[in-house]
Amino acid sequence: MLKVNSSRLLSSIAELGEIGATEDGGVTRLCLSSDEIEAKKYVLNLMKQTGLQTYVDSVANVVGVLASGSSLKTVMSGSHVDTVINGGRYDGSYGVLAAIEAIRRIKEAGVELNRPLAAVCFTNEEGVRFPSMIGSKYMSGALQVQEANAMKDREGVTFQQALSDSLNLEANENLRPTEEGWPIKAYVELHIEQGPVLDGAGIKIGVVDSIVGILQYDVSVHGSADHAGTVPMNARKDALIAGAEIISKVNKLAHENGLLGTVGFLDISPNVPNVVPAEVALTVDFRQNSTEILESVKEKFLDFISHLGNRFNVQLVVRPRTYLAPTRMSPRIISTVESAADKLGLTWRMMQSGAGHDAMNIAKIAETGMIFVPSKDGKSHCPNEATDAEDIINGANVLTNALEGLAKEEDYIEQQ
Amino acid sequence: MLKVNSSRLLSSIAELGEIGATEDGGVTRLCLSSDEIEAKKYVLNLMKQTGLQTYVDSVANVVGVLASGSSLKTVMSGSHVDTVINGGRYDGSYGVLAAIEAIRRIKEAGVELNRPLAAVCFTNEEGVRFPSMIGSKYMSGALQVQEANAMKDREGVTFQQALSDSLNLEANENLRPTEEGWPIKAYVELHIEQGPVLDGAGIKIGVVDSIVGILQYDVSVHGSADHAGTVPMNARKDALIAGAEIISKVNKLAHENGLLGTVGFLDISPNVPNVVPAEVALTVDFRQNSTEILESVKEKFLDFISHLGNRFNVQLVVRPRTYLAPTRMSPRIISTVESAADKLGLTWRMMQSGAGHDAMNIAKIAETGMIFVPSKDGKSHCPNEATDAEDIINGANVLTNALEGLAKEEDYIEQQ
Repeated sequence: MLKVNSSRLLSSIAELGEIGATEDGGVTRLCLSSDEIEAKKYVLNLMKQTGLQTYVDSVANVVGVLASGSSLKTVMSGSHVDTVINGGRYDGSYGVLAAIEAIRRIKEAGVELNRPLAAVCFTNEEGVRFPSMIGSKYMSGALQVQEANAMKDREGVTFQQALSDSLNLEANENLRPTEEGWPIKAYVELHIEQGPVLDGAGIKIGVVDSIVGILQYDVSVHGSADHAGTVPMNARKDALIAGAEIISKVNKLAHENGLLGTVGFLDISPNVPNVVPAEVALTVDFRQNSTEILESVKEKFLDFISHLGNRFNVQLVVRPRTYLAPTRMSPRIISTVESAADKLGLTWRMMQSGAGHDAMNIAKIAETGMIFVPSKDGKSHCPNEATDAEDIINGANVLTNALEGLAKEEDYIEQQ
Repeated sequence: MLKVNSSRLLSSIAELGEIGATEDGGVTRLCLSSDEIEAKKYVLNLMKQTGLQTYVDSVANVVGVLASGSSLKTVMSGSHVDTVINGGRYDGSYGVLAAIEAIRRIKEAGVELNRPLAAVCFTNEEGVRFPSMIGSKYMSGALQVQEANAMKDREGVTFQQALSDSLNLEANENLRPTEEGWPIKAYVELHIEQGPVLDGAGIKIGVVDSIVGILQYDVSVHGSADHAGTVPMNARKDALIAGAEIISKVNKLAHENGLLGTVGFLDISPNVPNVVPAEVALTVDFRQNSTEILESVKEKFLDFISHLGNRFNVQLVVRPRTYLAPTRMSPRIISTVESAADKLGLTWRMMQSGAGHDAMNIAKIAETGMIFVPSKDGKSHCPNEATDAEDIINGANVLTNALEGLAKEEDYIEQQ
């Protein structure tokens, strides 16, 4: 069985983690910042060292291809190298570097491929600077380059401007940009779990069967700023009391209906100890891999909100923020990953991904799967995001064998 | 009956309102800012024009005295000219200017006084820049000048430094500073209600029988920042859910126990839509003029908090922020104010003050009372704080007659 070169993979993760490193051990590489471009250059160089043909497309996705003799569609693997502010060293980067290492081992072993193998580094998965997942949306055809170019960050800088300001990525053979998209047959993304399930259960590999649907709302509550000492309780229009009811209700709906529910953002005004809050803005986030449950909770939540104004003498405005339907992973890739884990003697379990990933977008154009490895204490998007070296290597070995299988399987060969 | 010079009083309110005026019709005069000093100079000049002897003490309280033949303790009236950020033109300023106008009318009318009459402008009532009510606390002996001097604003500037940087107030006869405090017999403060009671009931004068006690806590909730999509509900430590329970409980305690309860300030971290809130800080404010009810609610609240950590898997820290006992107004001054209102044919009602005032501090050393006039829609601490001219004049007339009564009443003369 193929196994990755452990020290080579671990070194590359350590080296990439130095780019944009923060004082407390985290990493900040916002989309198209100099550090993110530096990280992509590191990835491009690694692809070139591996002998891959490199490409940079119009939204700065970076692709490295190990050609096969055939003209069949590509088997692809990868993730992203942008991070949240003070995020970790593994989210995204691990999937990109492991994909390159996996292809390198397959190449070194002289495996005869029936399909091209490609490693990919998508642009702006995190969505901190620009709306999320620009790279994979573009590659899947869900986002046109003109739409991407027009997106603005908080300072009003367009994506196009940011690209032209910072982009000096050199692909070999001048094969950039390619506008026609990649002909992808299968996509496998290796990622840290970002949750506590595998770590808590002591299981080595997560085989993702679905990525949850995400339903988000922006809610604003409009009351009245009154003096906390002079306005009787029944004459008040306290926006925060209605806000508190929403927070409690989201939690109750989550527990009662078996889904995840979070109020993560809340802003109040004027935010002074002796003034009744006049304005509250908050976000609501529901996640589930059943469309039926999401739809049912959506109805219950909106019904609850519709009665809240009268109950608390305030006005409410609810705006949809995000609605992503649940994404099913490909049964063929699920079974390929399971077989690889079994052959390597690693414990595994089927699980859902509660976080969004580039795989959600590529699933629209290709058979797609994901492999998870444990996150210590489930921590992610923070400096203490961590995965044991042994787990890093296990995940990369599973990926290598899954990619090998997908790229050479006899019964998998078909016309495009 | 004595009546104030309406146009003179209204003009002075309009003129003082121009100092520190904001674009949208409000006023910003933070303690010891150039605008607040400018406002105090305006007050000093008005006192001098009125023929009062002026004083500035060590914390920049401004006092103007109309001497009498006797050496008995003073009858004093006033308020403050500092404001909140973008506050109104009446809060504080009205009480200072009406006191000067009242004394001016009494002087013009040649009333024979048995006690000195004084108008006062206290420093830093609002407490926006430095801890509140420095001036009246100092004058009542509750705060020593060294303690006041050591207080710091958010930029780390001490009160002493701010005083020496900005203070160039010229009192006449060089009678500044006076350290021994004022020998005050009686204090009457005229103020806008800052609540909707008088305006809502169409009553002209509020006779304050008590200033509510204020019980404030700083509460912090410590949970854990987890990914909103990957961490199961029962593995979370969501600080905001516990925060929401506190907000709802404060509201419930207020309604059930007949007191005012407000959560006006709330800060959450990291405050990102897809991250479970790790930290919540909030303030709790209870007000009642019954010490028994305050104490009973205090117990209920602290008992509730003590069980909250276990219920929601978070840690809570509760710190007392303020505890001011309820302040009873002097029965003698209450009846003097009632008589004045009756003689002027004005409707009045007894009421409590839900806001804190300098009168709370002076009540510790002198017989103290307060007169309220209607605030339109109960609005205060904002640009649309307003009181009709007729109500402004009514309140000043009541004050004038009350001060006259207190300064000349035969049976009120006694040894110091």
